Amino acid sequence: MPLIHVTLFAGRTAEQKRAFAQALTEAAVHSIGATPESVDVIFTDVQRSDWATAGRLWSDPPAAPPEPGSTG
Amino acid sequence: MPLIHVTLFAGRTAEQKRAFAQALTEAAVHSIGATPESVDVIFTDVQRSDWATAGRLWSDPPAAPPEPGSTG
Amino acid sequence: MPLIHVTLFAGRTAEQKRAFAQALTEAAVHSIGATPESVDVIFTDVQRSDWATAGRLWSDPPAAPPEPGSTG
Amino acid sequence: MPLIHVTLFAGRTAEQKRAFAQALTEAAVHSIGATPESVDVIFTDVQRSDWATAGRLWSDPPAAPPEPGSTG
Amino acid sequence: MPLIHVTLFAGRTAEQKRAFAQALTEAAVHSIGATPESVDVIFTDVQRSDWATAGRLWSDPPAAPPEPGSTG
Amino acid sequence: MPLIHVTLFAGRTAEQKRAFAQALTEAAVHSIGATPESVDVIFTDVQRSDWATAGRLWSDPPAAPPEPGSTG
Repeated sequence: MPLIHVTLFAGRTAEQKRAFAQALTEAAVHSIGATPESVDVIFTDVQRSDWATAGRLWSDPPAAPPEPGSTG
Repeated sequence: MPLIHVTLFAGRTAEQKRAFAQALTEAAVHSIGATPESVDVIFTDVQRSDWATAGRLWSDPPAAPPEPGSTG
Repeated sequence: MPLIHVTLFAGRTAEQKRAFAQALTEAAVHSIGATPESVDVIFTDVQRSDWATAGRLWSDPPAAPPEPGSTG
Repeated sequence: MPLIHVTLFAGRTAEQKRAFAQALTEAAVHSIGATPESVDVIFTDVQRSDWATAGRLWSDPPAAPPEPGSTG
Repeated sequence: MPLIHVTLFAGRTAEQKRAFAQALTEAAVHSIGATPESVDVIFTDVQRSDWATAGRLWSDPPAAPPEPGSTG
Repeated sequence: MPLIHVTLFAGRTAEQKRAFAQALTEAAVHSIGATPESVDVIFTDVQRSDWATAGRLWSDPPAAPPEPGSTG
């Protein structure tokens, strides 16, 4: 305890995750006084086709803006 | 916020997930007044060999019913 | 299956959650062909003091914009 | 994205969580290049009576060591 | 590792959770060879008003069956 | 209900997971009186490169102990 569960887009390198896990652990140590050994970090990769914001999958292109002169 | 995390069997098409994400987002907008931009949907696919109900993995065949005439 | 886990700010009424659960269930039925009985919805309320975006807790006031004429 | 979900023992002060959320957000910015606005942190407090390690609830006292001279 | 996260209706006694945590830990030890010290169990209580199946909150009464002779 | 979500290192065989799911379900039945049909178990495999304890990924070698005679 604490358990830090990170959900993020797939594609980060092992080196990025290594640095991220270290930084998250240090954040727990410095902010709430956790011992390093008590901190678990779990990464869950998510494909852009499995994450939507505002109803749009991140693997889909954003909606095109209306063309100039259109009335819609 | 809200964050809608959906755990489902693997095998849905991208089109099904796209429609599902839109419908879930609309549910949040209409039911609790969320703005679309505030709604995140994350899908987690689970293999049938990783989900059990009543102690039986969904990848395993259901228990055979007793044969007619059996005393068990 | 599917399991729909919704994390949202505390404060919604029972009626809002009831309507939300129904709408989420219908979304699963119509979008991926789930049977209603197979759909579980779980709500987790989160206090604004337990959710941060951009490093700021939602219980805290937003940073004040710089005053006109300030050089910072 | 990323979503950082922290499960920790109840009892931390608002100030500790505020600092922790900031530090976790900075860890994401520096380690994987996330924009601050894209980082959500959610805290879930857990009572010691709801967390067990090695089969023992953290609300229970640790097993007493055997007394000197005992044969068990 | 493993981490066993149990989501259940609120209302179990401390003694029930204590026995449940022990049994879950033993299940991990015997089934996959985990060491007891490596097993974490976390319980999350959920109110019946926060869990729905088939679109109905567990805090709500089940739908009444149609009356005999009704045409609906 | 209950929902038992198990996060564990990848690499267990189907037979181990089958036995584990059965044992977890029996634990719920005996400890809190759940009916078998009400118990769902979901397994999430995690690679050792996605789990860190004390800031070290489990895919990385442990830090070497200081050599005898070193002053550091």
